[in-house]
Amino acid sequence: MRATVLYAAGDVRVETVPDARVVEPTDAVLRVSRACICGSDLWPYKAMECTSAGRRMGHEAIGVVEAVGPDVRRIKVGDLVVMPFAYCDGTCVFCETGLYTSCVRGGFFGFGEIGAQAEALRIPQADGTLFVLPVAEDDALMPSLLTLADVMGTGHHAAVHAKVAPGKSVAIVGDGAVGLCGVIAARRLGAEQIIMLGRHAYRIALARQYGATDIVSERGDAAVERVRELTKGLGVHSVLECVGHGESMLTAIKIARPGGAVGRVGVPQEEAMLGSLPAFYNNITVSGGPAPVRAYIEELLPDILEGRIEPGRVFDRTVNLDGVPAGYRAMNEREALKVMVEP
Amino acid sequence: MRATVLYAAGDVRVETVPDARVVEPTDAVLRVSRACICGSDLWPYKAMECTSAGRRMGHEAIGVVEAVGPDVRRIKVGDLVVMPFAYCDGTCVFCETGLYTSCVRGGFFGFGEIGAQAEALRIPQADGTLFVLPVAEDDALMPSLLTLADVMGTGHHAAVHAKVAPGKSVAIVGDGAVGLCGVIAARRLGAEQIIMLGRHAYRIALARQYGATDIVSERGDAAVERVRELTKGLGVHSVLECVGHGESMLTAIKIARPGGAVGRVGVPQEEAMLGSLPAFYNNITVSGGPAPVRAYIEELLPDILEGRIEPGRVFDRTVNLDGVPAGYRAMNEREALKVMVEP
Repeated sequence: MRATVLYAAGDVRVETVPDARVVEPTDAVLRVSRACICGSDLWPYKAMECTSAGRRMGHEAIGVVEAVGPDVRRIKVGDLVVMPFAYCDGTCVFCETGLYTSCVRGGFFGFGEIGAQAEALRIPQADGTLFVLPVAEDDALMPSLLTLADVMGTGHHAAVHAKVAPGKSVAIVGDGAVGLCGVIAARRLGAEQIIMLGRHAYRIALARQYGATDIVSERGDAAVERVRELTKGLGVHSVLECVGHGESMLTAIKIARPGGAVGRVGVPQEEAMLGSLPAFYNNITVSGGPAPVRAYIEELLPDILEGRIEPGRVFDRTVNLDGVPAGYRAMNEREALKVMVEP
Repeated sequence: MRATVLYAAGDVRVETVPDARVVEPTDAVLRVSRACICGSDLWPYKAMECTSAGRRMGHEAIGVVEAVGPDVRRIKVGDLVVMPFAYCDGTCVFCETGLYTSCVRGGFFGFGEIGAQAEALRIPQADGTLFVLPVAEDDALMPSLLTLADVMGTGHHAAVHAKVAPGKSVAIVGDGAVGLCGVIAARRLGAEQIIMLGRHAYRIALARQYGATDIVSERGDAAVERVRELTKGLGVHSVLECVGHGESMLTAIKIARPGGAVGRVGVPQEEAMLGSLPAFYNNITVSGGPAPVRAYIEELLPDILEGRIEPGRVFDRTVNLDGVPAGYRAMNEREALKVMVEP
């Protein structure tokens, strides 16, 4: 079968690899219907050190189950499923609380030999991991359903941890697919004012359509100043940090009002987090991490099926497997917002 | 009148200064019955740069109101009151939410010309700031009531932000007066397991009497390992960070279980906060800041008046004003846990 392998910064290849197969009795094999390229895939694409083994890429997919191991009970061959970006047994002490990304038998897709930008992949802990969809493979809602594997659930996670609630003011740092899904999530949870920090025309337009009430195109301290102007000098109740740089986190903390909350889902790119002092003196809560998107599918799915939200509009380019390297380049150069892969 | 003034690291003096008086119409003048030296006073005592003007020290007091400005309505001359470490008008947009430490007309005692380690001090925003006590000045509960000005409220704030609740496991980083009050707060909120990180015999003994179930005397990674052993390898639900060093914050984050919370009240001594990556990957919430202790007095006072909690036992030394410099030395050398001042 063919799969996407990253060997070094900028060196992403589509290669023939051994076919995916059941290894553990709790495994399934998924034939990929749709996958995509994630903003977080760009971090290793920008900076990964050279590795001869390569890293199999891709952690978001919808597909059809082709095979299951002898201990798989709930998932059946032929099921159309969403594959969240983390696998989990669904039963451990953390899964029981809904924190599937911390499953004691879990892990992340898009590492080692398991990646979704491929014709197929092995799914560990299939019963805990996969969510069976109530639609057919050719459904027109497929792009929006695909976002349940990561970006829509991740934007929702940011909003939940930023304590978005009816009547609150919200700011979103990061105009990628997660940030735009954060706009959807903030509106869905009743935010009154939704401020998007961004300057890219296409993304801003989509943010407005998703419900952003204000756009701040300044950066750094000028952005902080502008958000304060928009909020009577107070700052916002809730900030969704959807980038992961020290600088973006510092902006997030500075635009939160005292007692506010920052929900962070941008994978942090530096160990040191700036902003410890302003966060402290203003009693700002910083929360979040890898989103347990598996926990959010039940809540978000009806809104997609019934057309109330359309997160699939973040996809502005579709490629086949051969087009994946060009897809990485386009996203890295911000020519594409989010690339869908149809193997 | 006489007051405590810090001129440089290690240079704390008791001097004659102009009498405290009403300046703004919302001011009161408080004659200090009891004040104390705070662990946070040791930060400038250790490291403050030389200043010819001096910094008036002390932010915790109980006293009797001696004078009030023409706009003071609620507070009367003769009232016995607790003076929380921050002043506030009690009516602004942040005070309305209970976040008195972010009052738009507020500030902190123990800076500039207003300090409580003195015979008297000016109280800005007297109506919003002061809490009238229902007891007499010679009440035996005075030491415990004095902790409502800071350390008991601050320990409670840490516990609230660490999401302590019945049945939860809790760890306390920091064996100072705030950490020990954190033990009281954790037990009061129903924690099942309370782990104190510390190695000072007297403080450990007091922690046990306050309800600590386990003591961890190791430091750094060995402490992290020991807390994991005590919690089935998972870490604790809630951590109270009562120190403020980067190292102690990193320990706090490492001993929290995935999905757990760190309530931080130790004034951060470094801008960079370590632990951003482990906090992210484990979805750990970091929250807290200067405690709005004014908001907690109503809740905590009955437990003190009815003898259910005895935070006043953190005082292990009493001095008069002349003894204040020796009190700083004793606390700085960890010979004294917390020093009460009877001017």
